[in-house]
Amino acid sequence: MKIRPLQDRLIVKRIGDEEKSKGGIIIPDTAKEKPMEGLVIAVGKGKRTDDGKLIGLDVKEGDRVLFGKYAGTDVKIDGEELLIMREDDILGIIEK
Amino acid sequence: MKIRPLQDRLIVKRIGDEEKSKGGIIIPDTAKEKPMEGLVIAVGKGKRTDDGKLIGLDVKEGDRVLFGKYAGTDVKIDGEELLIMREDDILGIIEK
Amino acid sequence: MKIRPLQDRLIVKRIGDEEKSKGGIIIPDTAKEKPMEGLVIAVGKGKRTDDGKLIGLDVKEGDRVLFGKYAGTDVKIDGEELLIMREDDILGIIEK
Amino acid sequence: MKIRPLQDRLIVKRIGDEEKSKGGIIIPDTAKEKPMEGLVIAVGKGKRTDDGKLIGLDVKEGDRVLFGKYAGTDVKIDGEELLIMREDDILGIIEK
Amino acid sequence: MKIRPLQDRLIVKRIGDEEKSKGGIIIPDTAKEKPMEGLVIAVGKGKRTDDGKLIGLDVKEGDRVLFGKYAGTDVKIDGEELLIMREDDILGIIEK
Amino acid sequence: MKIRPLQDRLIVKRIGDEEKSKGGIIIPDTAKEKPMEGLVIAVGKGKRTDDGKLIGLDVKEGDRVLFGKYAGTDVKIDGEELLIMREDDILGIIEK
Amino acid sequence: MKIRPLQDRLIVKRIGDEEKSKGGIIIPDTAKEKPMEGLVIAVGKGKRTDDGKLIGLDVKEGDRVLFGKYAGTDVKIDGEELLIMREDDILGIIEK
Repeated sequence: MKIRPLQDRLIVKRIGDEEKSKGGIIIPDTAKEKPMEGLVIAVGKGKRTDDGKLIGLDVKEGDRVLFGKYAGTDVKIDGEELLIMREDDILGIIEK
Repeated sequence: MKIRPLQDRLIVKRIGDEEKSKGGIIIPDTAKEKPMEGLVIAVGKGKRTDDGKLIGLDVKEGDRVLFGKYAGTDVKIDGEELLIMREDDILGIIEK
Repeated sequence: MKIRPLQDRLIVKRIGDEEKSKGGIIIPDTAKEKPMEGLVIAVGKGKRTDDGKLIGLDVKEGDRVLFGKYAGTDVKIDGEELLIMREDDILGIIEK
Repeated sequence: MKIRPLQDRLIVKRIGDEEKSKGGIIIPDTAKEKPMEGLVIAVGKGKRTDDGKLIGLDVKEGDRVLFGKYAGTDVKIDGEELLIMREDDILGIIEK
Repeated sequence: MKIRPLQDRLIVKRIGDEEKSKGGIIIPDTAKEKPMEGLVIAVGKGKRTDDGKLIGLDVKEGDRVLFGKYAGTDVKIDGEELLIMREDDILGIIEK
Repeated sequence: MKIRPLQDRLIVKRIGDEEKSKGGIIIPDTAKEKPMEGLVIAVGKGKRTDDGKLIGLDVKEGDRVLFGKYAGTDVKIDGEELLIMREDDILGIIEK
Repeated sequence: MKIRPLQDRLIVKRIGDEEKSKGGIIIPDTAKEKPMEGLVIAVGKGKRTDDGKLIGLDVKEGDRVLFGKYAGTDVKIDGEELLIMREDDILGIIEK
């Protein structure tokens, strides 16, 4: 199964271990709100301008990206936990 | 009876079993907010740009789509439970 | 007496029996928020774009429409209970 | 004394008797929120579009109009109670 | 000392006696919210449209205007209490 | 050290003595909210319109300006207390 | 590892010692909200106008900038604490 994100959305697979607060209590520790790293799995065709022109995305499949911890919506596809978010939620692209 | 959705709206038929919280209490479990799958039954003609141009939708009849659990408005047509939502509520198109 | 709605507004006459909560208490039952059916009695000339162009409405007199239960403003004209709403409050047109 | 309303504003004189809640207590009765009837006394020159073009109003002096009970600002001119409101507050024009 | 208001702002001198609530307590009496009369002392050059064009104001120096009681900012210039407000706060021009 | 403000921002040096509420308690006295006078020390290059054109500011270095008491952000540059604000926070230019 | 910020975002490295409130209690002292100084490490390609044109940033790599204390998102890259913010959060460029 494959998902094609609409418009300026993209699908991201989280990278690295995500420390979760055991017991579900939100811990107001700024360190926990640090951006997370992910791999772009699929991108939408882009955003329409006010007069209908299509503007492609800057982020492309395979990019490693940084995004806010609470960005996007969780999706489980074929047993894999992914995220669908808008390109505007991406803070930057990681170049190694 | 058939409904023709207006503008950038579409009619979606839910697919799969929807786990409901028995007793109507909202359970703050992130797993319950995972997107849902649906089949597009009808689409509107599109959205008007600021200068009146009509931009057709990316989603078309027959598409299998992902959308947020609380997206759209429930409609009962000929005894069938459907959803009317805007294309912007669609997260992605499922390609199998 | 006749009302000519302004801009993108239209006048709708409700169809079907409307279940009201006896005693005026709001019952948080999702079934009560299902869209309602109505007949379009009159439509405005349309909406102006940002540069002043007039865009006519998609809905026309005589259309049977679906709209949210709480859409629009109630008007009593010649003893008849009608609704004035914007076209954007119309979810879809019913084709039988 | 005469008032020339600015832009998309107009001056309206209420028609008909207005039921007021004796004692000033707001009674949450939907019947009390039904639109009111008025006579347009004066209209502004219109609204400017984003690029400075002037779009005249659809409502003109002498029109009988429907408007929400709480629309506009009360003005007392030469002892007469009038209302200054924007054209967007007008729900429709009454044609008899 | 003279003030040149910027953009779509204007300087207004109140006319007539202003009833103040003695003791500073706000009295929720609608009569107290009736518009006030003023004389326009100075006007700005106008508002820029989205593409940078300058649109002059409709109100000019010497106009007698109506404005909401709580519109604008009080300024004391050379011992005189004046008001700086935006043209959009002006309800109408008084023609006698 | 010199600061070059970005876009439609400007740097202002307060003129005149500023009455402060001793003890840090906010006194809800309208007289305390009267605009303040300042000298423009530096101005940005201007604001971009929606299609990318640059519109220069109306306020220029050396202008004496009026602004709201709580406008802008305090900056301490070389021991001097200055303010960085947007041109839109300037109420008017003082001409003596 | 290098981060390429998207659109109108930039990466800033704080300069100077940052006084933190020991114990995590927020101290409502205006002196604590004074802008902070930083060095621009990387800039995005710019912002898209409504019709899709790309407008480059005014701030460039190597600029020393002033920004609000609470602007941006903290990122830790290769053990170094950096900030990703939008150009609009930059108050001015420091020229020495």
